[in-house]
Amino acid sequence: MRIVALAGGIGGARFLRGLLAAVGPQDEITVIGNTGDDIHLYGLKVCPDLDTVMYTLGGGIHEEQGWGRTDETWSIKAEMKEYGVGPEWFGLGDRDFATHLVRSQMLTAGYSLSQVTEALCVRWKPGVRLLPMSDDRVETHVRITDEQGTRAVHFQEYWVRLHAEVDAEAIVPVGADTAKPAPGVLEAIAEADVILFPPSNPVVSIGTILAVPGIREAVAAAPAPVVGLSPIIGGAPVRGMADKVLAAVGVEATAEAVALDYGPALVDGWLVDTVDEASVAAVEAAGIACRAVPLLMTDVEATAEMARAALALAEQVRK
Amino acid sequence: MRIVALAGGIGGARFLRGLLAAVGPQDEITVIGNTGDDIHLYGLKVCPDLDTVMYTLGGGIHEEQGWGRTDETWSIKAEMKEYGVGPEWFGLGDRDFATHLVRSQMLTAGYSLSQVTEALCVRWKPGVRLLPMSDDRVETHVRITDEQGTRAVHFQEYWVRLHAEVDAEAIVPVGADTAKPAPGVLEAIAEADVILFPPSNPVVSIGTILAVPGIREAVAAAPAPVVGLSPIIGGAPVRGMADKVLAAVGVEATAEAVALDYGPALVDGWLVDTVDEASVAAVEAAGIACRAVPLLMTDVEATAEMARAALALAEQVRK
Repeated sequence: MRIVALAGGIGGARFLRGLLAAVGPQDEITVIGNTGDDIHLYGLKVCPDLDTVMYTLGGGIHEEQGWGRTDETWSIKAEMKEYGVGPEWFGLGDRDFATHLVRSQMLTAGYSLSQVTEALCVRWKPGVRLLPMSDDRVETHVRITDEQGTRAVHFQEYWVRLHAEVDAEAIVPVGADTAKPAPGVLEAIAEADVILFPPSNPVVSIGTILAVPGIREAVAAAPAPVVGLSPIIGGAPVRGMADKVLAAVGVEATAEAVALDYGPALVDGWLVDTVDEASVAAVEAAGIACRAVPLLMTDVEATAEMARAALALAEQVRK
Repeated sequence: MRIVALAGGIGGARFLRGLLAAVGPQDEITVIGNTGDDIHLYGLKVCPDLDTVMYTLGGGIHEEQGWGRTDETWSIKAEMKEYGVGPEWFGLGDRDFATHLVRSQMLTAGYSLSQVTEALCVRWKPGVRLLPMSDDRVETHVRITDEQGTRAVHFQEYWVRLHAEVDAEAIVPVGADTAKPAPGVLEAIAEADVILFPPSNPVVSIGTILAVPGIREAVAAAPAPVVGLSPIIGGAPVRGMADKVLAAVGVEATAEAVALDYGPALVDGWLVDTVDEASVAAVEAAGIACRAVPLLMTDVEATAEMARAALALAEQVRK
């Protein structure tokens, strides 16, 4: 079976680990990774979501933290502070830096982000084919108003430095309108047997991927069933601050509202957590098959069970 | 007193530390640093000699090693090995990487190497004004013949990977012929009260600095006395493999031969070690004032004593 999953960072990566545990060796998983949270730091190209997927599936992730490397050292960060070179709020460990150095050197040499990602995965062997959503630069900016006035900040600054504590007024994936899907992305979607939306952030992860012209259309047109898993449980994001960016796009932070925002033209099936069982009827009424199952990714086996439920729902809605 | 010193890496840096201990707070030292051993690694600009001077005088050097940082970690090197990205033979620690990242980012932003070096020295406070010999790219290459045939390798490859174990057939400072002295270099030489050649490598350190058009001429024309310290003691380099590169330029590895190679048109005074006292007469016969004093930089005080001897000789030869 050919499975395509759109994925952001931590939530997406953890779901994929469960998915890998749920499928067989003959199944092929293609992951279309969000690159809208990419950022240029210290002259290097940093791709947090791609790396989180790569490190998580490749066994190099810092488990408790969810991002960055295990056995990390922080010498460069300490030195940057001595040099007075920021940003101090973004945590790049030394091992992580190595990835960004290799990536940046290859990009400078003329390789595309897809090619670089493939090369990095030669080491990490994530067990999936990891494609960036686009080889073109897309950078999600967030409009905020604070004591400095109304301005746009990079998503990472909003998320990491400001902890999403100030309201997001608009989310703009700068560059998305002219970006092209990376090689293989549209083909993978068209040829998929199942398309999954992991419980990643619907706005700044899945939403950004869908904002690349051609991808939303390809998913909508794909013959494969499309099944999503709610990142909202009991009216709050399981992890992260998805409610803040949902508010910016006028979507309530509920499992039901996120499903309806994707809409029946895009998703055929939707999984909500058992605590949100009451919303199943409303989602189904909107034309999206819906089931309530435990959606907490407490460990790999619990996550694999979620993946099995998603694949089972896909079979039920397959035309 | 305004002192100008031409300096390579470890030997030059250690001498400068002694010089700083020997002079008073009213004395101004300008160091013209060799950049011919600069190398581009992992997309970053690495300046080993400038950094060795900066770290040594700024208190950040790895003392036993003579290069690199104290309290260093090696996570990036380990990661590069996992990625299969070389060169494995060049040791860049994580703290050291931070310097190269800051430098490279500033260079990419359009700052000159002089400006970058000045900015890095804001942190390191080396107690001297550190100028690169040139803001233009100069890279010393070494012609060798080995099982792969006759070819040119980067100086660092010759020195660090090959340990100078194969004969150097020629030393070529690629780019030197069109390089311009960095801002301030010629002025410092012209306005100096004393010019010193520390016991740095006469070919690939001092020689490369002098190969930048205008610098040799400025030193020869300077009103200040020029005094050098022999890097060769008892027919062998004190440290490093200067004999291998001296052979490439047809100069015997003796304190006397190095003095005569610089020649009386360039240097007015020359210090040899006490074990080379027998060569004093021959150097003086060539028109260079010569003294035999202990030249082993065993500690800062012994090195300061060498600096005092050099400054005393400068006074004796001052016209």
